[in-house]
Amino acid sequence: MESTANLPELPSPYLVFLGDATTLRDAKTGAGVAWWRPEAVVGEYGLPGPRVSLGLPELTPAEARARGARAVLVGIAPDGGQLPERWIAPLLAGLEAGLDIVSGLHTRLASIPEFAQCAAKFGTAVRDVRHSDWKPQVATGRKRTGRRLLTVGTDCALGKKYTALAIARRLRERGGDATFRATGQTGILIAGSGIAIDAVVADFISGAAEALSPDASPRHWDVIEGQGSLFHPLYAGVSLGLLHGSQPDAIVLCHDPSRATIDGLASYPLPSLVEAIDLNLRLGSRTNPAIRCVGVSLNTSSLDAAERHRVLAETGLQLGLPCIDPVAGSVDPIVDQLLP
Amino acid sequence: MESTANLPELPSPYLVFLGDATTLRDAKTGAGVAWWRPEAVVGEYGLPGPRVSLGLPELTPAEARARGARAVLVGIAPDGGQLPERWIAPLLAGLEAGLDIVSGLHTRLASIPEFAQCAAKFGTAVRDVRHSDWKPQVATGRKRTGRRLLTVGTDCALGKKYTALAIARRLRERGGDATFRATGQTGILIAGSGIAIDAVVADFISGAAEALSPDASPRHWDVIEGQGSLFHPLYAGVSLGLLHGSQPDAIVLCHDPSRATIDGLASYPLPSLVEAIDLNLRLGSRTNPAIRCVGVSLNTSSLDAAERHRVLAETGLQLGLPCIDPVAGSVDPIVDQLLP
Repeated sequence: MESTANLPELPSPYLVFLGDATTLRDAKTGAGVAWWRPEAVVGEYGLPGPRVSLGLPELTPAEARARGARAVLVGIAPDGGQLPERWIAPLLAGLEAGLDIVSGLHTRLASIPEFAQCAAKFGTAVRDVRHSDWKPQVATGRKRTGRRLLTVGTDCALGKKYTALAIARRLRERGGDATFRATGQTGILIAGSGIAIDAVVADFISGAAEALSPDASPRHWDVIEGQGSLFHPLYAGVSLGLLHGSQPDAIVLCHDPSRATIDGLASYPLPSLVEAIDLNLRLGSRTNPAIRCVGVSLNTSSLDAAERHRVLAETGLQLGLPCIDPVAGSVDPIVDQLLP
Repeated sequence: MESTANLPELPSPYLVFLGDATTLRDAKTGAGVAWWRPEAVVGEYGLPGPRVSLGLPELTPAEARARGARAVLVGIAPDGGQLPERWIAPLLAGLEAGLDIVSGLHTRLASIPEFAQCAAKFGTAVRDVRHSDWKPQVATGRKRTGRRLLTVGTDCALGKKYTALAIARRLRERGGDATFRATGQTGILIAGSGIAIDAVVADFISGAAEALSPDASPRHWDVIEGQGSLFHPLYAGVSLGLLHGSQPDAIVLCHDPSRATIDGLASYPLPSLVEAIDLNLRLGSRTNPAIRCVGVSLNTSSLDAAERHRVLAETGLQLGLPCIDPVAGSVDPIVDQLLP
């Protein structure tokens, strides 16, 4: 996958650490990286005892290092965000074997003395991707060359990252020139670079979005992972800064038809799809007057096949836009809009 | 001035440090505090040589301390944001005399070893208000009690702070219950507490706005200093997060009729006043469906008296809203909308 020229690149391939995860859901960070970037994973390891597998070779850190691994990827998210004590020894074993650690956890591993001391002793490094090495800068508002697509949503956590990854991959498969641009920790682990945009100081949100998708050749598409929603009462500022700084030529609206209200906030109804598209286009036109909506991506995981087909067809008809589920089907109807 | 219950309060009254400022414009931070909060300033001092005066008693740090001062306020902004070497000794003299230092500079004085060591030695403290002591928290979206007014703008730096201060003061003068809520460094120095909202991590913008204006009695008005503009391609995310978290019942739109484009960004035209009011109401209604615009505040400093009267009258007629200049006239037509 192409890298962001001016952002630091994470070391890979990875040995995926799975701790004591017993479900793929617990191990979704590792599973996501293995699915979207199979060439970047050489094996997996974890704690002794029953554990989920990603189907990768079971390797010790030393064995992984011998097979070319450059880092341990923390492939699980702990309950409650704190690092469990029992994960420390196997992660330190990675540093001792000459591997860096790459982590998307909220806890900053580099600030834990045991990790810092061990890394210093063995000449390795701890990379906390939520806290990027990007030097903050204010946006410029200058129009950039190349083309950009941003996935936007009616809410958080309903498929904006997956949709962007699927579109970028399919664009490349069909001969297009495209790069996935990551704005959250899992996306960064998959892409190998990016900026966790919600962790940036408020003044620099749009500046981060500009840095993330620099000038490019005229037919190149940056496919940018959206964050939050303009309708989310907690995080809309992040979404607007990302929209302005991304200057998208195209947006894809992501939605979960089983949700009626913002996840966790029952007093906030979701907007209609028309309203969500309209507001994103209105606000996005401030930095790119040519912005248009090229499709809708529905997360239909709660529906059976018959319902899924009906909802996709009806929504597409109502809006007059390609309407797909990138997990259950193809993103081709959207990619058709992006290729010459 | 009433404080924000759950935010740390700055020590005052202040001795205002004016460095070698020769114009009131250079000393506008100190002048603003002296104007809006005269009870919080006991005197001024600076470097030897010609210097502007705020008309306060000229005192040494020791004399100010004897008159009850608790802190030195850095009342000037240095060119280019860096702390000039020649300011260090007189500021350290404040710490040595038992005064804290309160600073709104970008440079974090507390991180300069000379300041940290001197403060430790004399049992004093350095308070950098751009970097607040507020413990970041995500917003809740919960509707709060009490009433709120937010000043919004077509651009940055055209009177949102001044307008909010003038409305809060006039509300109190007319028997209302009102508190000015500061979101920028100068406002914080005036109010004695607040959060520099553009320095908060992106995820917490709306959380900061919620913390800034907590539950209050039903007739109490929080008058909140706006930041940036929803139309500003660099900072709109901050403005939207502040709008959502503030849940304003009322907005006042601030505008400078001499500007046609965003300050410093000639390719971005300013929105019309109608457009700016409409977008603020549309987005603000997400967290407070009862939001309304109660007036327009024009910065007419570039106009002569005849032009000023014409523009204020015409704008008021066109919009059907009270239209005032808080510097050249009274905010009463707006305050009339807020009192029972």
